[in-house]
This record gives sequence, C-alpha cells and structure tokens, in this order.
Amino acid sequence: MKNPNPEPDLVPLYPLLYEDAVRRALLEDMGRGGDLTADAIVAAQETAAARIVARAPGRIAGLDVACEAFRCLDPGLQFDVRIRDGKDAAAGDALAVIQGSARPILSAERTALNFLARLSGIATATRDIVARIRGTSARVVCTRKTTPGLRALEKFAVRAGGGSNHRFGLDDAVLIKDNHIVVAGGVAEAIGRVRRHAGHMVKVEVEVDTLEQLETALKEKIDAVLLDNMSVETLAEAVRMANKRVITEASGGITPQTAAAIAATGVDLLSIGWLTHSAPALDLSLEFSLKL
Amino acid sequence: MKNPNPEPDLVPLYPLLYEDAVRRALLEDMGRGGDLTADAIVAAQETAAARIVARAPGRIAGLDVACEAFRCLDPGLQFDVRIRDGKDAAAGDALAVIQGSARPILSAERTALNFLARLSGIATATRDIVARIRGTSARVVCTRKTTPGLRALEKFAVRAGGGSNHRFGLDDAVLIKDNHIVVAGGVAEAIGRVRRHAGHMVKVEVEVDTLEQLETALKEKIDAVLLDNMSVETLAEAVRMANKRVITEASGGITPQTAAAIAATGVDLLSIGWLTHSAPALDLSLEFSLKL
Amino acid sequence: MKNPNPEPDLVPLYPLLYEDAVRRALLEDMGRGGDLTADAIVAAQETAAARIVARAPGRIAGLDVACEAFRCLDPGLQFDVRIRDGKDAAAGDALAVIQGSARPILSAERTALNFLARLSGIATATRDIVARIRGTSARVVCTRKTTPGLRALEKFAVRAGGGSNHRFGLDDAVLIKDNHIVVAGGVAEAIGRVRRHAGHMVKVEVEVDTLEQLETALKEKIDAVLLDNMSVETLAEAVRMANKRVITEASGGITPQTAAAIAATGVDLLSIGWLTHSAPALDLSLEFSLKL
Amino acid sequence: MKNPNPEPDLVPLYPLLYEDAVRRALLEDMGRGGDLTADAIVAAQETAAARIVARAPGRIAGLDVACEAFRCLDPGLQFDVRIRDGKDAAAGDALAVIQGSARPILSAERTALNFLARLSGIATATRDIVARIRGTSARVVCTRKTTPGLRALEKFAVRAGGGSNHRFGLDDAVLIKDNHIVVAGGVAEAIGRVRRHAGHMVKVEVEVDTLEQLETALKEKIDAVLLDNMSVETLAEAVRMANKRVITEASGGITPQTAAAIAATGVDLLSIGWLTHSAPALDLSLEFSLKL
Amino acid sequence: MKNPNPEPDLVPLYPLLYEDAVRRALLEDMGRGGDLTADAIVAAQETAAARIVARAPGRIAGLDVACEAFRCLDPGLQFDVRIRDGKDAAAGDALAVIQGSARPILSAERTALNFLARLSGIATATRDIVARIRGTSARVVCTRKTTPGLRALEKFAVRAGGGSNHRFGLDDAVLIKDNHIVVAGGVAEAIGRVRRHAGHMVKVEVEVDTLEQLETALKEKIDAVLLDNMSVETLAEAVRMANKRVITEASGGITPQTAAAIAATGVDLLSIGWLTHSAPALDLSLEFSLKL
Amino acid sequence: MKNPNPEPDLVPLYPLLYEDAVRRALLEDMGRGGDLTADAIVAAQETAAARIVARAPGRIAGLDVACEAFRCLDPGLQFDVRIRDGKDAAAGDALAVIQGSARPILSAERTALNFLARLSGIATATRDIVARIRGTSARVVCTRKTTPGLRALEKFAVRAGGGSNHRFGLDDAVLIKDNHIVVAGGVAEAIGRVRRHAGHMVKVEVEVDTLEQLETALKEKIDAVLLDNMSVETLAEAVRMANKRVITEASGGITPQTAAAIAATGVDLLSIGWLTHSAPALDLSLEFSLKL
Repeated sequence: MKNPNPEPDLVPLYPLLYEDAVRRALLEDMGRGGDLTADAIVAAQETAAARIVARAPGRIAGLDVACEAFRCLDPGLQFDVRIRDGKDAAAGDALAVIQGSARPILSAERTALNFLARLSGIATATRDIVARIRGTSARVVCTRKTTPGLRALEKFAVRAGGGSNHRFGLDDAVLIKDNHIVVAGGVAEAIGRVRRHAGHMVKVEVEVDTLEQLETALKEKIDAVLLDNMSVETLAEAVRMANKRVITEASGGITPQTAAAIAATGVDLLSIGWLTHSAPALDLSLEFSLKL
Repeated sequence: MKNPNPEPDLVPLYPLLYEDAVRRALLEDMGRGGDLTADAIVAAQETAAARIVARAPGRIAGLDVACEAFRCLDPGLQFDVRIRDGKDAAAGDALAVIQGSARPILSAERTALNFLARLSGIATATRDIVARIRGTSARVVCTRKTTPGLRALEKFAVRAGGGSNHRFGLDDAVLIKDNHIVVAGGVAEAIGRVRRHAGHMVKVEVEVDTLEQLETALKEKIDAVLLDNMSVETLAEAVRMANKRVITEASGGITPQTAAAIAATGVDLLSIGWLTHSAPALDLSLEFSLKL
Repeated sequence: MKNPNPEPDLVPLYPLLYEDAVRRALLEDMGRGGDLTADAIVAAQETAAARIVARAPGRIAGLDVACEAFRCLDPGLQFDVRIRDGKDAAAGDALAVIQGSARPILSAERTALNFLARLSGIATATRDIVARIRGTSARVVCTRKTTPGLRALEKFAVRAGGGSNHRFGLDDAVLIKDNHIVVAGGVAEAIGRVRRHAGHMVKVEVEVDTLEQLETALKEKIDAVLLDNMSVETLAEAVRMANKRVITEASGGITPQTAAAIAATGVDLLSIGWLTHSAPALDLSLEFSLKL
Repeated sequence: MKNPNPEPDLVPLYPLLYEDAVRRALLEDMGRGGDLTADAIVAAQETAAARIVARAPGRIAGLDVACEAFRCLDPGLQFDVRIRDGKDAAAGDALAVIQGSARPILSAERTALNFLARLSGIATATRDIVARIRGTSARVVCTRKTTPGLRALEKFAVRAGGGSNHRFGLDDAVLIKDNHIVVAGGVAEAIGRVRRHAGHMVKVEVEVDTLEQLETALKEKIDAVLLDNMSVETLAEAVRMANKRVITEASGGITPQTAAAIAATGVDLLSIGWLTHSAPALDLSLEFSLKL
Repeated sequence: MKNPNPEPDLVPLYPLLYEDAVRRALLEDMGRGGDLTADAIVAAQETAAARIVARAPGRIAGLDVACEAFRCLDPGLQFDVRIRDGKDAAAGDALAVIQGSARPILSAERTALNFLARLSGIATATRDIVARIRGTSARVVCTRKTTPGLRALEKFAVRAGGGSNHRFGLDDAVLIKDNHIVVAGGVAEAIGRVRRHAGHMVKVEVEVDTLEQLETALKEKIDAVLLDNMSVETLAEAVRMANKRVITEASGGITPQTAAAIAATGVDLLSIGWLTHSAPALDLSLEFSLKL
Repeated sequence: MKNPNPEPDLVPLYPLLYEDAVRRALLEDMGRGGDLTADAIVAAQETAAARIVARAPGRIAGLDVACEAFRCLDPGLQFDVRIRDGKDAAAGDALAVIQGSARPILSAERTALNFLARLSGIATATRDIVARIRGTSARVVCTRKTTPGLRALEKFAVRAGGGSNHRFGLDDAVLIKDNHIVVAGGVAEAIGRVRRHAGHMVKVEVEVDTLEQLETALKEKIDAVLLDNMSVETLAEAVRMANKRVITEASGGITPQTAAAIAATGVDLLSIGWLTHSAPALDLSLEFSLKL
C-alpha cells in the first residue's frame, strides 16, 4: 500500500552541517572581548522582540542558520519563522520574530544577518533566472565556485531558489575539463582513463569547446557534456547532435540577461557560477523593540 | 638618526591568519575521495606550468592565499607572483605562474581561484569607489558585513583596494546604534553607560539618523558619528555641525553610483557594506600547459 | 598529439586527507606526558635505523600514512619505501627503512604500525578476493561500513588491493534501500521522488530483495541494482533479467569463501562490508638497530 | 558507617570522550550535501520506529555512542536501550529501540552501526577469550594496537567484554621493550634509567624474550614482566621463576585458540592485540518500520 | 522616555567565549581512560551535594566557567551560585552548591577549581590594588601578559576585580613601544606612519621612557602615553606636562606595594602585568557530602 | 655490550604536544586584524636581531615553545639558544638570540614571552624548593592544579626545575581522596573497589588525614599514601608507621617556607600545587636592535 505522506520539498540541512561555520563566525565577531557596546549599555534583565525584515523582495534561504547564530549565544531565545526557506518575501515582510533577552539578540544580529542575506541573495538570484527560463526544459545548476567554507550552505541556497546542484566537490563526480584533455592527449584517451578508474556510482561529464570535440566525445560512454562558452547557435547545434543521448549543459559566463536565450536552445542545464560568486546579498534588517 | 627604510605599504597577512580557512576550503572540495578526475587522468610524473590570468581588469588581492592553496596540496610547487596584491592588472595579465607537478595544480585550482577572485573582486570594487571620490577628503571604509569565516581576508582586500578598515569586530571599538539607544533610553544615556564601562583604548562612535540626534550626540565625549541614511543635503549640514570636532561617517546603502556625491559633502568616511557582501568576483582563469 | 605519459595507477592520497587523523592518533598515544619509556632511556643524540617488516605475506597500503606519523614527531627522519602501496610483500620483506634520531622512531612506532597494519589488512583481504574471482567479469567494491574517521584511508586501501570504491558517503550517490522503499510506499514511488530531486551528476541504485522487486525496478530509470542476500541461483536469474541494462551488484554477507560462486553468476559487482569492518590486520613489526 | 550503595560495574564513558569522534564520523558520511537519498524520499513529518537487532550472538558495547550518533542529527529522537553495554545478546535480540522523525533515523543509521558493530565485536571477542580461560587465574588485557582515533572507545569495549586495560598510552606507564633494551645496552641499565626518571605513580614493566633475560629483570625493582612469544613450557617456567614477586604477562600472537593453554601456565595476564586490531565486527541490523 | 532598567554592571561572558577552553581542560585531565578512581569507587546511582568554599577571603570570578565544567560532564547537575562573580567572599563562604550525580561532581572538581581559583586570584589581586589607590583618580588596567589561551577569561577576571581592560590584542589598538620607535627612527616618525595606516576607530598610545620623549610625543596627535619605568617624581612631572591632553598610563613592575604612590602622581592608569602573570590563585575547596 | 651513550637528562617535548597551544595563543593576540602597530611601522625588508634576556635569576623552561611562536609567524627566523631549558640564568643573561625579519619578531614577542616567563617561573620555583630540601631524601612533585590547557608544558617545567611529576591526569593512576572514601564508606572498601577494577599498570595512592586512617590504609595493598595537611610531628610519625612499605607523600599548602621542615620528616615526596597555580612568572624582556 502506498504511503500517503507527501514527498519532501526543500529539505532543511542538519545543523551538524553548519554549526561549526556559525560558531566560527560568531567568534570572529566577538574576538576576545565580546560585544563592548551591548555589554556596556544593555542590562542583563532587559528583554526585547526583534523582527528580521526584508527591505527588498526576494527568495529566503538560511533562517535555520540565522536561528543557530542567535541560539548559540542564548539557547533561551525564541525564534519564530514567518516565511520559510524556499518561500518568497515582499519588501517589508517579516521573515522571523525573535524574543527574549535583549543583549544576545543585539550581539548576534550581524552574524545572523550576514548568513541570511548572503544565502537569500543566492536563492533570489537563482529564482530569478529560473523564472526567466520558464517554459524551456532547462534547469539552473550551480558550480564549485562557492565561498570557501560555505559550500553546503550555498548549495542549499541554490536549491531554495529552485535550482539544482552540480557536483558537491571533486570526489562525487567526474568532470573532464580542457586541461585534463591536454594532459591525456585527447578526449577519447581522457575518457578511457576515467572509465578504467572510476567507480560504478560515478557519473562522467566532459567539457567540450567545439562541435568537433563534441562529436568525438559522443562516441564514448559518458553521461553529460559541458558545452563551454558556445554561441547560442552553436549550442543549438550541439543539442541537436547530442540528441538526448547525453545530458547537455551550457556553461561560461551565463548571466540573468543571457539565460533565456541559452535555455531556448534546448540544453538541459545552465550552470552559472555567478550565482554563488557574485550574486548580491538580499537587503535585510533587524527591527528591534523593547516590546512586541 | 632616522632609519632610511621606507614605511610599509600594503602589509601581507601572516599565513597563520588564513591557513585554516584554506585547509577547510580544500577539504570541502576534496571530500573523502579526493579529485576523482585528476587522479584518473594525470600521472604522478606529469609536470606542468600554469598561469593565473585576469579576464577583466582589476585590483589584485589574495595571491598569498591562492599560493597557500596550491602549496597545501604540494609544498614542492613553485609559485611566482607577477602582479602583487594591491596592484592593478589589465585584462589578459598573468598574476602568477605555477610550476611543478601537474596533478596538484589541477586539484587546487578551483579553491585557489575561489579565494583570489572573491578577494580581488572586493579590492577592485574598493579601488573603483576610491577613484570616484578622488579629490574629496573622504576615505572608503568597510563594515562588519563580511563573509562568515573570511573577515580577516576581506578586511585585507579592502586595504588592497585603497580603503580603510572600520572595526574588526564587536570587541575593538564601540558603535552605538539605534537599537542601543532605544535600550538606553536616549543618546546621552547610552554614551554615558559606555563611558563608564569602556576601556581607555576604545573609541566610541554613535549612529544618528537626524540632525537633532546629532546635536545631542555632539554634546557628549565621542570620537565619531555615523550619519545613517541621510540625504546629501542633510549630510552636508551634519558635517557643518560636526565642524571637525568628531569624525563623520556616512552610511546606508552607498553604492559606486552615489559615492561621489556623498563624498562631496565633506564627510570623513564612506562606510560601504556592499564592498564585502555584494561586490562581484573578479573574473580569473588558470591557463594550463604541459610546457612553460 | 597523444601525450606519451602513462596514465596513473594507484594514486596516493594528498596528505591533507589524512594528516589530522595521524596527529590525533599520535596525541592519543602521547597523552600529556609523552613517551615515558623512551624519554627515560633514549638519549637525544642516539641514532638508529629501523625496518618495517611484514611477518606475513600481504598487499601493502598506508606507507605514506606511516611516514607521516614518524615525520610528525621528527621531520628529520629519513623514510625510504622499499615496497610501495599497492604492491605485494612476502613474509620477511622490508616495506620501508627509517633512519635518524632513535627516540622519535620508537615513540611513533606503534601509531605508524597501527595505520599500516590495518590498511594493509584491508588491501590484502581485497586482493585475495579479487584473486578468487579472477576470470569472471565481477569487480570487488567496498561499502560505507568503514571505521569511523578513517573512510578516505580505508577506501584507498581497497583500491590498493585491486578493488573499487562504492559511494564515499551519503552525498555522492543515491542508494535506495528497503527502508526508503517502505517510506515511499513502493519501489517506483521511491525512484520517482529521487528523480525529481537528484542532481544530474548523481547515479541512482536500488536495493531489491526479490525478483519481483527487481522486475519493478527495471521499469524505472536507474543506474544499478543492489541484489541483497540472494541465493546464487536467484542472483543468476537476476543478472539474466537485468540483461546488462543496469549494473548488478551482489551484496549481503559475502565472504572470501562465497565470493567465487557469487561472481560466477555474472554480476558486475560484489560489495563486501567485511573488507573494512572485519578484515584482520596484516602482521607487521619494526626491526630496530643502532646501526644500519 | 558503610555506604549501602553497590560499587560500580561497567562504567559508561562521559560523552565528552567520544562526541568528537561521532561528529567526525557523521560529517565524513554526510559530506557537503547530506543524505541525498533520504532527503529525496522521506518527508519531514514522517515518523518511524526502528530496532537495532543482533544478527549474531554477542556481547554489547557502544550503545551510548550509537545513541549519540542519532541524537547528533536530531536531539528529539527517543533512544531506549534494551540490552545494556556489557550484557549479552542472542541472535535476534533487540538492543535498542529508536523512535521519532524518520529521516534522521535513516541518515544516522550507518554511522551508529559502524561504531556499535565494531565495539561489540571487540567486546564479544574479549568475552569469548575470557570464557575460554575461566578457571585459571589469568585476566585478558588489550594493547595499544587500537584503531587510530578510537582508543578510549576500544578500551571501553574490552572492559565491556570482561577484559582489563593495559596502559592507555605512552604516558601512563613504562613498558621497556626489546628495542629500549638495545639502546640502553642491557635490561638492568634500561631499568636503572627508568628508575631515575619515572614518577612515583608510574609502574614499570619489562619485556623479556628468554629466561635468562627474565632472571636479570627479576633482580631489579619492577612491577611486571612481559613474557614475549614464549612457548607454553617456557611460560610455565617463567611463572615459576617470577614466583608472584612481579605480575607476569604473556604476549605475542595469542588467539582464541591458544589462550586456554597459555592461561593454564599460571600467568597473570594474557595481552592480546588481536582483540582490537583484528576481531570481526558483530553483525547488526536496523529494523525499521513506520509504526512501532 | 528613559528606560527604567539599570545599566549593566559586571557582564558575564557568553559561554561561546570559553566553552572550548573548558572542554580542552577536561579532556586534558580525562585522557583516554577517564577518571579511574571515581569510576572504580562511585556507583552510577550515587548522588551527592557539594559546596565550593573559599578558604581565604577574595573577589570571585569564574563561576560560570566552573559551572560549564561540571555541566560538560553531566548536563543534569544543578549548580546554584551563592556569591556571584564580582562579589567578595569571606574565608569559609560557600560560592556555589552543586547537586546531582556524585561521579561527575568528583570527576570535574579539579578542572572547575583550576579555572575558578586562577580567575578569582586575578580578581582578588585587582580588587586589592584598586582598594589601595582609592581616593586617587587612577584606574587599574591589565596587559597582554595573560596566560596563553585564557585571555578572554583573564580580562574578565580583571573587570570582576574592579579593573579595566587595556587592549585585547594586537589588532584593537596601537601601542607604539620602544622597539617600534627604534625601527621608525624616532617617535614622530613612528606616529606618522601609524597615522597614515590606522583606521579611524583605532586609538594610538606611545611608550616613552623619558620626559624628552614625552615632550616629542605630545606634539603629535595621540590618545595616550605609556610612561615606562619612571620614578614617582618623574611620573608626577610627566602628568603635569601631559596636562590632561592625553591619557597617562604608568607601567613597569608595578606591584601592590608600589601602586598607591604611583597613583598619587595623578596618572590616569596603572597597567600591571603582574595581575595576570603572577597573581596567586585563590584558595578554594570542594566540600562534598552524600546529603545536603 | 653496553651502549656508551649517556642516558637522557631533561627531555624536550615533541612540538606536537604544544604547537596547537602556541597557535591558539598567537591567534588570540592577532585577532582578525593582525599587529596594527608593527604593520604600520615596520617595513617588510627591515631585519633585526633580538635577545631574550632574564631580568632576574632563574631556571629556564620553554625556549622551544618560544621558538615555535616566532617560527609560527615566520619559519625563516633564526633562533639560537644560549641557555638551555633546565639550566640556570643570572640576571642579565641572554637566553636566546633571534635574527631575521623585524616585523614577525615584534609581532610574536609577547606570545613567546608569555609562555617562557610562565614556564620559567614554575621551573624556578621548583628549583628553589628542591634546593631548600637538599640533603633530605624527599623529592618535589607537582599536582593536577595546572593551568587549563597547559598541563603538558607545566609538567615539563617542573621537570626542568628538578622536580618530578605526579600523575598527568585522572586516567594514569588512582588517587583515593577523602571524598571517594566518603562514597565508599571507608578506606578499606574504597581500596577494595579499586583493586577489583584497576588495571595492572595502575598505581594506587590513598589520601589520609589522620594516623588512624593511615593505619587502616597500611593494611591494604597500596603503593603510596598522601598525608594531607598533617603537622610536622604527625608527618614524622606517619613516616615511621609507613616504614618504607609504601611511598609517603606530604601534601597541603606546602610553600617554599615550610618545605624544608616537612622534608626533614623523612617523607618521600612533597606535592606542591603552588608550583603551578601560583608561582610568579620569571621576569624576562626582549632586547631588540636593528643590528646584531
């Protein structure tokens, strides 16, 4: 009998995957002396309520991480989510409400917002490109051009934006790039070496720059081709040549502006490093009051 | 007798301050299996030369960090810097040349570039705003809106771009913000509390939103005022009121486009969170060859 | 033109992937007081030579790790490998020779041998099963039943023994097991959920216990089937049904004794948890002398 | 007045001593992407019950560690122990029942079982040898041949099996081995050096290979002798010579098969490296259901 | 309207700032085997009450840290503070009462007291010097001569004793010392270099050894002068010369005995390294009983 | 044939045992911004020589640790030891000379001296008490009252001072204290429990407060008695009663002033917590010059 429970949608990360990053960020801000300003001004018994508010519209990602930042300073803080990760906020919307001791709310504010604004910025950028290519069969994927130390979180933010993840690192899939082909002496030789060494659970993708390289690659047993820096016309021809036998991925300087035309070529994937290395942060603020 | 040595210019960070970040980033990319692609394709005895090349003009920051990434995998790699941190590169310029074993060059490439592109992006953005306000007496400073875990590096990148650093964290200076004033019950009371608690080596800055608040603040013993989200006209009036008795800092959504007008008001500082939370990465690539 | 360099064989791990494990192990042994015995007995200027000797025949894995243990105490020790990782040693063979200061050789001995004996035990066990199934088309793969904290090293040891690696962890491939099928309410539903969520670089394998389940699974788009705890006869029938459309993997209590019969069924893979959770260590010793 | 409370039996380890090992193991399995399979298939609201079941009879050790693995992903999971560490399970017995959110149960399963199966394997092997030498006065002790990083846990498992612990590391007791004697130039000289340096709370044991060495050692002030690789006849003679003045420990390749004969010689201790470097894991499984 | 809440007094540190130090200290004491004595003697069900008692009068600092040590072993222990950090205890006073399981109370006792006795020793020494200079306008400040790894805690202890903190580290203020002046070639040149590089939130202090150097320094824009190793007479003259334009700080071998005379010169600050590098620990004990 | 090499004297610690402590201390001082003062003033090409000089006579300990601090910032610094650990320095003596780049010498100075002054203070205090009891048969031992995080280093410093080490932690020896006796219900019962649980390499000491308790304890099989807070007369009687059958250790508030009288009672050991919790640091300075 079929289980009636629905399947998962955006799955939250286990805190294990980010709690060290949050602690490091707080310690980096606290230094050795803690929050000199709040410590001098805010009495221990002072309580407050605060709202995290979007100052611009966007797709939200990172509320659990923000919560962890507040809770790491004071486990007694109450953190109520109003707009969940993976949902859209309008300008002025409250994303979460925090209540409890005033001092840790103020001390953790910046660290919490630094995570949340960055991740929501990535989610928003992803969402916007996903929207631009709606109607095509293409999906948006991110790359390994992530912020050092934050890959798990940024890959999550891409999912929150409606995108998909390319490989997580060097050990979970093979991507044969131009430099590997140089070393091997050719596409076929590179693929052959990989085939002899890769485990059976490893997919293999090959980067090609020209249709000639693509033709060679398609003769081998591969799972995907990365079509690097091709014009829209060449991409369309490449997709035709691939003929659904392998996954086709367009790559190379794709921006929100160019995404739709590229997606219209019929490629399966647009991989966009810009999402994680250059998307602007979402503008957020913490509205604080002594009463709710 | 005066020492003839010149004073320092852009001072490199001790590796102690970033080597853990580099190791974490490499391990995040390597996972448990290492680089499946390079391990399958590149023989141990293969050697190569590679050049890190700017694909866009920019101010460079982070070459030591990039070097650490390569050396962390293979201490035998030779890394020669061609355009030093704090210097400008034109599109096409080689920033550094790496020679040695081919496999670690390819395995560390992405991690090294992730650091270098981000930091150079920040340096470039800083440089560009510094250029826009040339001729005024204003300096560009960054904020605590930095990438979690990378503050020391991003503050360095701002210096490489010709900017200055605001406080490094919560424990090295006092910045009384609107929320602190709410808790204290007023600007004067907040400053008073800080004066009774802060050590003698701690500077005190107060955020004010209006000229009335500024007037109150200027009656107290403070070092600087942060003029938050004021119009250019109000800023000019605030600068006049401060009359050089305290440092004046303009803040709030300053962008490259608005910087010049704000600087023209006579404020001492423009603090710009955008530099570290939203500046785009510099476009870089690694050009690889089996021979030099 | 084809590059004349040979492709890689057994690729050594970057020390980055094990140096923390080595340090932890040494510190665990050293405690707070260091080596009381050697410190009391061995004068600083005493030098020695030592040979790591196999007391039983086996396949070697872990010499780099052993070297790291010695070098971690004294970077001046000379460590010369005689029989490389991935090669076979006869009983009595010297695997490596260490020369230098006597005290660190004695203090690091146990930690070095603990790594080397365990990893060589895994490599030897793998090699022996690989030998037993020679002539069939099956390969030996390991599982996630590895020693906590040592997965990268144990996966390497399996490769040194001539085996292949299954997935490295939960994030590099999908393996739908019986419990997942229970939750989803059926094989097809489970696969469907995965197909909607998994990235394009992720392979999907499904565990089936019966031929009926296999029949259902083969109707879906999957990469491999794990045939769990089937008799040799059922396995043979399963292989026939799969008909090379998907990779077939036999699993469940496979031992050196049963491997050959299972491989003879035509399955592509034998996955053997025993290799990493229960294979005995290789018997090694350190032969020490004051002179070479 | 005497306290009526009974003395402790098998004392559980403080979680402080293993929680880092558990976190490392989970992170090693989770990687950067988490559990792709469970995340795709198991909805957040899905709950389940699971039983950890012994598939073979054995002595249990490590349930607290297994519990920590589950709780580390989800502190809300209920973990009820049915057969405590240090007790025996028959094949088919449930060791513990876990209830709560289904997804973290599935994601932590392998890590939890990896610890529990290894530690219970060691406990079972210890118990079996203890049983074989019942009736003699000998005790079973483990060595420093433990899995790197898991010494505290494996020493605990030996205690759970009814064995005793030899020293925990290089800093808690002196064991003068053959190589130390070589350096010192003789047994008496080695002991003398130790006597001049060792603190008063440090016991001293000397390894001897022959009865002549034993005779020399017995003239010195030592606490124990390690009789290395002696035949049963020689051991018996050694025990007679020691005449209860020092503790006698038989060592060198002792296996379950040879233990009884060796214990019958009258030695006080059998030290068995095999227990921790080569004992097979106990066969365990997680039986999962959506209802209890 | 003014907020009626009082301003903060001695502000407790967030546990984030010391919990790693506590864990390290406990692990350092527990080693790999845990508390052999308590584990052998104290049954799991045994409960107890214990009081931390001052055996000498003193100012208390570190009770939160001590609590963390007990709770780190057993979160179920109840820890009730009787005399808070920053308050004075007479000999015989109970500082805190701990109730719960007997074994973790005994196992954590030494680690907890090691922190508490050291920090209370610093607080007591600070308090005593503060008392000796009462009636003058001088404040007592500590230095960077703190115990490696414990700076945040020791700076807190100085505040608990009524002292103030000098800079927390090298990055939160500039202190130009004699050696820097040697490098720069003179006081004015050194200050000039700093002025060109230091951020606007950084205060600048200059060490001077003579009245001539002071005269030079006072011509520059600085915030404070450190008057190093001057006689009481010279100090008085220096204070007169500074004439309140800069903060004056006396430094160099100040002890409880010499503090009053130095403070009477009118200097603003007495900086005393002795507080953190040589103040004796406060004598404390844990009184344990099976009943409250 | 006897080995002609001399036996070891004061054995240096492996850097593995302190390098993390050094790194933590440097990072604690550097914060996120590094050394603002030296970075502003000292040009990269500036070189210097510096001498670490004793300003008071003392026994030296910790030069390797100090060297590690300098080398951690700049591996190219040359560090030459003039007076080795375990040797005495007169006031004015240079302990070491450092040459190389000026900036890291100045940046690491305080961290290096913080370690060296503390450890040398402990060594000096130990040496002084050892000198006071010369002529008796007593030895000076330290306790577990060490600085959290620095136990290995402080135990080393005691050895450098001519003292011996008591146990390193809770897991390397049994010390039955008064509270344990309370739980067990009596001395004999406590010892009995330990005897049934402790491994064969573990020594057992019992704390007794009275001669009656001592009498009871001496009937049991123990290695040492800790005679707590006894008068000199009672101590002498206790030593007579023990009659060399067990090691006798005097404990409880022993100071340099009381040590000689206590040692004259004939006890084997004086254990002195004061050495590590309250001994003053040795007064050291760094003399810096631009030329050697």
